[in-house]
Amino acid sequence: MADPRFFKNSGSKTLAEILNISGATLESSGADQETLFSDVASLEEGKSAHISFFDNVKYKDPLKSTKAGACFISPDFIDLCPKGTLPLLTKTPYKAYALTAQIFYPYAKPAPSISAHAVIESTAKIGKNVTIDSGVIIKAHAIIGEDTWIESNAVIGGNVEIGARCRIGMNATISHTLMKDDVCIYTGARIGQDGFGFAVDLTGHVKVPQLGRVLIEDHCEIGANTTIDRGAGPDTIIGQGTWVDNLVQIAHNVQIGKGCIIVSQVGISGSTHIGDFSVIAGQVGIAGHLKIGSNVQIAAQSGVMKDVPEGQTYMGSPAKPIRENMKQIAYLNKITRK
Amino acid sequence: MADPRFFKNSGSKTLAEILNISGATLESSGADQETLFSDVASLEEGKSAHISFFDNVKYKDPLKSTKAGACFISPDFIDLCPKGTLPLLTKTPYKAYALTAQIFYPYAKPAPSISAHAVIESTAKIGKNVTIDSGVIIKAHAIIGEDTWIESNAVIGGNVEIGARCRIGMNATISHTLMKDDVCIYTGARIGQDGFGFAVDLTGHVKVPQLGRVLIEDHCEIGANTTIDRGAGPDTIIGQGTWVDNLVQIAHNVQIGKGCIIVSQVGISGSTHIGDFSVIAGQVGIAGHLKIGSNVQIAAQSGVMKDVPEGQTYMGSPAKPIRENMKQIAYLNKITRK
Amino acid sequence: MADPRFFKNSGSKTLAEILNISGATLESSGADQETLFSDVASLEEGKSAHISFFDNVKYKDPLKSTKAGACFISPDFIDLCPKGTLPLLTKTPYKAYALTAQIFYPYAKPAPSISAHAVIESTAKIGKNVTIDSGVIIKAHAIIGEDTWIESNAVIGGNVEIGARCRIGMNATISHTLMKDDVCIYTGARIGQDGFGFAVDLTGHVKVPQLGRVLIEDHCEIGANTTIDRGAGPDTIIGQGTWVDNLVQIAHNVQIGKGCIIVSQVGISGSTHIGDFSVIAGQVGIAGHLKIGSNVQIAAQSGVMKDVPEGQTYMGSPAKPIRENMKQIAYLNKITRK
Repeated sequence: MADPRFFKNSGSKTLAEILNISGATLESSGADQETLFSDVASLEEGKSAHISFFDNVKYKDPLKSTKAGACFISPDFIDLCPKGTLPLLTKTPYKAYALTAQIFYPYAKPAPSISAHAVIESTAKIGKNVTIDSGVIIKAHAIIGEDTWIESNAVIGGNVEIGARCRIGMNATISHTLMKDDVCIYTGARIGQDGFGFAVDLTGHVKVPQLGRVLIEDHCEIGANTTIDRGAGPDTIIGQGTWVDNLVQIAHNVQIGKGCIIVSQVGISGSTHIGDFSVIAGQVGIAGHLKIGSNVQIAAQSGVMKDVPEGQTYMGSPAKPIRENMKQIAYLNKITRK
Repeated sequence: MADPRFFKNSGSKTLAEILNISGATLESSGADQETLFSDVASLEEGKSAHISFFDNVKYKDPLKSTKAGACFISPDFIDLCPKGTLPLLTKTPYKAYALTAQIFYPYAKPAPSISAHAVIESTAKIGKNVTIDSGVIIKAHAIIGEDTWIESNAVIGGNVEIGARCRIGMNATISHTLMKDDVCIYTGARIGQDGFGFAVDLTGHVKVPQLGRVLIEDHCEIGANTTIDRGAGPDTIIGQGTWVDNLVQIAHNVQIGKGCIIVSQVGISGSTHIGDFSVIAGQVGIAGHLKIGSNVQIAAQSGVMKDVPEGQTYMGSPAKPIRENMKQIAYLNKITRK
Repeated sequence: MADPRFFKNSGSKTLAEILNISGATLESSGADQETLFSDVASLEEGKSAHISFFDNVKYKDPLKSTKAGACFISPDFIDLCPKGTLPLLTKTPYKAYALTAQIFYPYAKPAPSISAHAVIESTAKIGKNVTIDSGVIIKAHAIIGEDTWIESNAVIGGNVEIGARCRIGMNATISHTLMKDDVCIYTGARIGQDGFGFAVDLTGHVKVPQLGRVLIEDHCEIGANTTIDRGAGPDTIIGQGTWVDNLVQIAHNVQIGKGCIIVSQVGISGSTHIGDFSVIAGQVGIAGHLKIGSNVQIAAQSGVMKDVPEGQTYMGSPAKPIRENMKQIAYLNKITRK
């Protein structure tokens, strides 16, 4: 059960409500739609009034021994569900769980208020119902959209635009950025600083003024201590609904499409473009000036040195189609295990 | 010699004191136990009143030419010690040096005081002898243990518990965390934010409420700009005496045992568990949902994709037992140098 | 065109001025030296009053279709320049562009002022014409050189020295550091904290007091969220004109020479020394206690485990001369594509 000091449970829900919000169905009509559930929980910790989920075959054993009262599960695995656990059938158990957890623990911005310990330039425009915590600094002509929450010690640079219902984490820094609605910037992220732009010169590298911006579209998430440099001339762009994890580096002029997933410690070099719905796994490095297509998947720690066509899965350093990389791994394993 | 602007030397110590604190012994009883030493120093910079150490055969040359008055050294290498340098014999010269340096330069929290420029909610509980620097923000119901030091512009979230004798570095951020005693969080670390939890969906990834906490046990160190996400349901746990270096990513639900060493830029994916006294070298990536045993060693830049049994040393990407990996490296070197 | 909310254009320049500042020449004397140019721009966005550059053969197509009025270009590629674009001939087009962009968009520190919302200890020495933004904390006996700019929520530790014309980014943290002139520290960088120094011990790792400093020479740039630990005894040193990108880890006692380029997410382990004008590409890891020569190049994601002699180019993990590594890649590709 979630620690009530940190998380507020919104109260019990009926089975009917849960089926409705999650889109799951029952195997038969026998269950009482008015049965109350009080919380979500993991398979290991779930009790009779809790709802859990099964989405990874690694967790078969916890499923078999779970005491959870109900469990989102694919019809394919229904036989693994123990007798005391009501299977809630769905092709997307993790999504069903997510939607259910959201109604038990809805996101709650603190009540609108502007701390007396924030420093807000008089020319900044602050929208309705905004919450600004202590230690926040907002520079001249910045625009903050309604229902946005700016947490302690964050700094919003001059002329930055932040949309509605955004959340800017503690100690984060935003400059030279135009951000749309429903964006979440996590703690310590650095958005909009100069990119690493210079002409190499033995008498002293010559700095190239970085004259672009960072554009962040609706519904993006940018992880803790991630760095996104502004463009050098073109803009750096994070497309709608793209999620970026912690400690990621996104260099100047990078453009990422919609719905991508960029996992922790990835580095994307300057001027590389990525299409829509691509997944870049942890610690991948991508060289500069590349085109990575849509629906691409790059395996963890890969080093991408060439363009990757749409729909491909690449792996390795240098990255290549995953089958080729797996063949090379198998070849070496065979040779050296002789 | 340490720059006195930054470090205060506590004054000279006798040889007897140094032998006592370090556990080292002398080769013979000839040395005067009342000989005074004024400082610790490297082999290169040491002078007659200084104590140095020899712990890496790469530094044989500096040892042979050192002017240090005494040197912690293993009995195996005593012949390398020059005539003017008194060998202080120990199997653990670096530990002996560490203990000695600690008495010359004891850790000193500034005198207890609470800055008028900190913002502390009235419901927070502040222990005895706490030092809180300017720009610190402490939210409602947070608990700060006695003799703890919170440095400038750090933010402590609501209901966070911090134990006794902890140090929270400048610009660090702590939320949703319960921390025991003698923990040191370095500058800019981000502890307790939401993990990267979502159900992938083409109509927009669905956020999974992150309902766990971060638990940090006694005597941990968490490096600068490191990120530790709170659990998704279970807690993220850093075990007693585990040291984490800078720029490390520790994802939700990761559980690390006692006395581990996690070197810089490591990434540990969600729900992976690591045993006790394991060492994860720099830039290693570990996939999610794995079991890494106790006393495991993972070589730098490895990519761990499977469980690693207790006591094993793994290397490579994908990681495998180090002998297999070394064979593969040797095989390729042989083939391509023909 | 640069967004005027974020960037101020200093006004049109004549062709003569641009040739003078950039060192470029014309193919023939036909062009009117008084022709005015109003801005710099990319090949794609350039219009007749704009100056662009061509420096990467990947961008031949945008060059052929550019509408830019003039373009810095190597004499080797002059035939690719379209009729309406005046070629400005130079062997270093990117440097010429950089110098030109600098006169259109000169670096401008805000007018000198010290925010009433900064907290500056009375013993700190603040030079002439310094700008200190809101939320800055400056500890006792720190020295800030003239014309330096310290941005919001940065923290400058006790006794730190910062030279003239430096810029310390928002939310950055500096301690135990002596910094010369014209240094730029980006947002969230952590400079001067204790290194990861301890003697491993099963009863609890023993902390080694970190008694050195960080020395940063003239004209360095240190990227966002980068971490530079102070020395353990010797100092950590960043040589003159060295540029360090975002999210880089530089451990205790590392010494880097002049004019190096350290790209994002590189990790350099303790006590490694790097010569002058070396380039370490993204995500490289370098083990401790190594000597990396001058004019060395290390390819992205390499893992350097041995010394690298002057002038060499290394690649791979473990890193080796690039030809050997390319041979191994080619060998594996051949075998597994059969």
